[in-house]
Amino acid sequence: MKFEVAAKLKYEVLASSTLILNVEALMGGSQFVLEESFEADRELKMYNWNAVAGEKRFKVIELPPNGEVNFSYRAVVENTCRVIPAKQLDETLIPLMPVSVLPYLNPSRYCQSDKLYKFAADNFGNISKPYEQVLAVRDWIYNHVEYRAGHSNANTSAADTLKEKMGVCRDFAHLGIALCRALTIPARYFTGYAYKLEPQDFHACFEVYLGGCWIIVDATKLVPVNGLVKIATGMDASDSALASIFGNLKFLAMEVNTKALDEKFEDVEVVNSRGYSYQ
Amino acid sequence: MKFEVAAKLKYEVLASSTLILNVEALMGGSQFVLEESFEADRELKMYNWNAVAGEKRFKVIELPPNGEVNFSYRAVVENTCRVIPAKQLDETLIPLMPVSVLPYLNPSRYCQSDKLYKFAADNFGNISKPYEQVLAVRDWIYNHVEYRAGHSNANTSAADTLKEKMGVCRDFAHLGIALCRALTIPARYFTGYAYKLEPQDFHACFEVYLGGCWIIVDATKLVPVNGLVKIATGMDASDSALASIFGNLKFLAMEVNTKALDEKFEDVEVVNSRGYSYQ
Amino acid sequence: MKFEVAAKLKYEVLASSTLILNVEALMGGSQFVLEESFEADRELKMYNWNAVAGEKRFKVIELPPNGEVNFSYRAVVENTCRVIPAKQLDETLIPLMPVSVLPYLNPSRYCQSDKLYKFAADNFGNISKPYEQVLAVRDWIYNHVEYRAGHSNANTSAADTLKEKMGVCRDFAHLGIALCRALTIPARYFTGYAYKLEPQDFHACFEVYLGGCWIIVDATKLVPVNGLVKIATGMDASDSALASIFGNLKFLAMEVNTKALDEKFEDVEVVNSRGYSYQ
Amino acid sequence: MKFEVAAKLKYEVLASSTLILNVEALMGGSQFVLEESFEADRELKMYNWNAVAGEKRFKVIELPPNGEVNFSYRAVVENTCRVIPAKQLDETLIPLMPVSVLPYLNPSRYCQSDKLYKFAADNFGNISKPYEQVLAVRDWIYNHVEYRAGHSNANTSAADTLKEKMGVCRDFAHLGIALCRALTIPARYFTGYAYKLEPQDFHACFEVYLGGCWIIVDATKLVPVNGLVKIATGMDASDSALASIFGNLKFLAMEVNTKALDEKFEDVEVVNSRGYSYQ
Repeated sequence: MKFEVAAKLKYEVLASSTLILNVEALMGGSQFVLEESFEADRELKMYNWNAVAGEKRFKVIELPPNGEVNFSYRAVVENTCRVIPAKQLDETLIPLMPVSVLPYLNPSRYCQSDKLYKFAADNFGNISKPYEQVLAVRDWIYNHVEYRAGHSNANTSAADTLKEKMGVCRDFAHLGIALCRALTIPARYFTGYAYKLEPQDFHACFEVYLGGCWIIVDATKLVPVNGLVKIATGMDASDSALASIFGNLKFLAMEVNTKALDEKFEDVEVVNSRGYSYQ
Repeated sequence: MKFEVAAKLKYEVLASSTLILNVEALMGGSQFVLEESFEADRELKMYNWNAVAGEKRFKVIELPPNGEVNFSYRAVVENTCRVIPAKQLDETLIPLMPVSVLPYLNPSRYCQSDKLYKFAADNFGNISKPYEQVLAVRDWIYNHVEYRAGHSNANTSAADTLKEKMGVCRDFAHLGIALCRALTIPARYFTGYAYKLEPQDFHACFEVYLGGCWIIVDATKLVPVNGLVKIATGMDASDSALASIFGNLKFLAMEVNTKALDEKFEDVEVVNSRGYSYQ
Repeated sequence: MKFEVAAKLKYEVLASSTLILNVEALMGGSQFVLEESFEADRELKMYNWNAVAGEKRFKVIELPPNGEVNFSYRAVVENTCRVIPAKQLDETLIPLMPVSVLPYLNPSRYCQSDKLYKFAADNFGNISKPYEQVLAVRDWIYNHVEYRAGHSNANTSAADTLKEKMGVCRDFAHLGIALCRALTIPARYFTGYAYKLEPQDFHACFEVYLGGCWIIVDATKLVPVNGLVKIATGMDASDSALASIFGNLKFLAMEVNTKALDEKFEDVEVVNSRGYSYQ
Repeated sequence: MKFEVAAKLKYEVLASSTLILNVEALMGGSQFVLEESFEADRELKMYNWNAVAGEKRFKVIELPPNGEVNFSYRAVVENTCRVIPAKQLDETLIPLMPVSVLPYLNPSRYCQSDKLYKFAADNFGNISKPYEQVLAVRDWIYNHVEYRAGHSNANTSAADTLKEKMGVCRDFAHLGIALCRALTIPARYFTGYAYKLEPQDFHACFEVYLGGCWIIVDATKLVPVNGLVKIATGMDASDSALASIFGNLKFLAMEVNTKALDEKFEDVEVVNSRGYSYQ
């Protein structure tokens, strides 16, 4: 599928600051960036960085203090959301995992899997197949957590969401990750653009490592999983933030847009007999 | 496309040896390994390794000295050979390249680009667009180098092939890489399974980095580029050998097979207005 | 300095399990492993792994279920704790940091820097030099947190310790890391063997990135910083655990020992005009 | 030991070019950079890069075409050349090597170990211990190759030097590396500053991986091995060049200087019972 994604961000620079923006579509894996532009409305020192393992790329931007600054990103991306029969989504034994997958079994800032062992075992421990556990986790979150903007904030973690049972896509993802890791299923955060998301915004969901692939899971069920464009993956929002501010910078406004460029986009049906992967 | 690939290898172990086999289909990028098995006909210590940057995975196998050993690999792989309009295949300025791409501008064991600057400049220097340079390199090799088995050997390099004008897929690839690097186009070795290759064998070709993607190029023109299954990429055959032997091991026999599992495989037309990429 | 380090660990295997042990002295940096042995009291499948960026190495061990298992590690290590004048310990501007340092500004499971901004700013924000901030953080923890075994557990985080003001070396380290990150100073967890620690045990402290080096800081002030032998560094105890258990395994006993092999070991004086680094 | 190193480089820019300079002292391992400055005599776009595995760092510099440009680098570095008893310098079995060491067994552009198997086996194959093989390789080169400036050039490889028996430090290093790899001993190129080198210049030698360490070997015997300051390590000069030019740039002049800042520098004695390592 081919998508056009765009983001506009406006900040007010109150003092000399460094801004790290992580809004560019990831290059690599099953995702191709066919066209791309990134613009600021004034001359700035900007550095292009790639994360060590290629799981994100970002711009480090120096902002001298003088008023408003506007950033505008636009890309044409082609990707493939691959269908994988559920029967292939077996667990990988730990000694056979790539060393790069192992960290995704650890607890992290917003996904305190170490605190949720009992809850995970009590609720999902009796399900024998790991992919069925994942689907049960997803459905439990969907059924028990209310999607509501404004309730959670940048400090909210999976443990909080499990108690408060309200949150946004980021919180749904964090809880899903924490529960999967508590079940010894590697899970990571996925942030991207999402076609058909209403209202348009960035989106977050998660991926689990089964059958040697990263399988996409969205506990919000807000969008078709084949309409996502990947920006980054990581442990959780702590290392995959869209913007990180060092200094005194005020976020003013944002505008996000994702369009399908192919005429015949069809939502994939999310059924339990299949997994979907952007790898 | 979905492919079934298989390889059988037979060795005679004359003394305690270590064998590194690099025949498994690469996981990642736009390639998914759906099923896989690797078997030896006796109990052996085998270690699964992934190269640091994920560009190959391989088995390190300890072989105590007692006679013949047979290995058998089989996998079902799904991949996508993406079409990219030639007009998007611009060069990436060096300061904007990912640090992982830069080494592919350096000369290497079998691709002595530093010796071919003059030849490359004289023959392709007047072509203005880098992708057109690549296509001219490919066609020059195809037209001037004779495909002949048995002429070259494990020591043969691009400089040799340019002189001797005979070789096999590996030599065609090495010469293509060396010439592209001499033109400041990052180029790397690609080794894999190839559907429709006659007789069936492993295959080698190369990739160039243009437009932010690795574009596949096969100067042998022996197979459709959309029928390849990637095993590894690297600087050249020096770091991407299918088998590396440390000790006293005699290679006896090999059997390779690549089948398309989709009924409607159609060869892509290799035209100059398009590039193809497995990324 | 030359040290001999040793660890014995005893587990009871109640069901088929995987154990990841991270007790081996790190090779690399300013630390040399001169001799080493790792033994189990029965034949086991053990895999040697190196973390992707070399910041830890560990053994992945498969444990079939039959009773007790004993592990014994011993190494002779030579390292250098380098003295660096405090005046060189300036901050590195974010755009000039190596990409591998940047993650150590993020919050993590046990170091929720994002929750401590206000506390950090109120207490250390008026100190102008970053290394002086680090020393003030260290001294604040030393003066306000009581070292007491048995109070904290594997779930305890920096935010907990700041409230409860009791803990062990791990908690002191987590709080130090969280406060430094809240002050935009990269900080990471350090786990190792410690000469002169009474009673003998593994030890944890932290490192801050200043002047292009990782400077060691120990808020417990229990041991001389030049008597440490590094096992691993990481975000916090979530990715640097000495042992990670997957399955049903019961920890029974442990014995740790660190000896100086040079006769003239002298404790370094920890004064504010100097930093110490194992890099 | 503490050293002050300095380099001045002058180029004439004939057309818009990119220059990659790799002259900065490496940070990390047993080497600390205490002070550092890098200056150009005009405003230029310069990017600081770190190689993926940290084995070099370099500046990518954009040069618009207008006349001469001067670069000036200066650093104060502290490092330790560690002494390791030869009896500890055993080989590491391939399955136990870190994955990052394995590539240093492969042939490379200037170190065609695959062409030198017979020569290596005939001359050094009957020596049983690997470190003694290394010392024999070093002494063979020292005794049979004449150090002469101006004979070899940027295309000269180990195979050439073995035939022509003349060269400079770079050629001595390449031949040493090629022979060690042919003996299944991992070996890599080392480039740096060298105290007491007459006349002052950059220097090249090599390292072998034995006993879990990289041991420094200098077949030129021109300088004490404890007076080296590391710039980079790599496969050979193909990936560790001090300067890489893309475009039309004319090298005009260079000035290199290495001073010891400690008064009591003493040359280490290079005896066969010991190895020296910067790790």
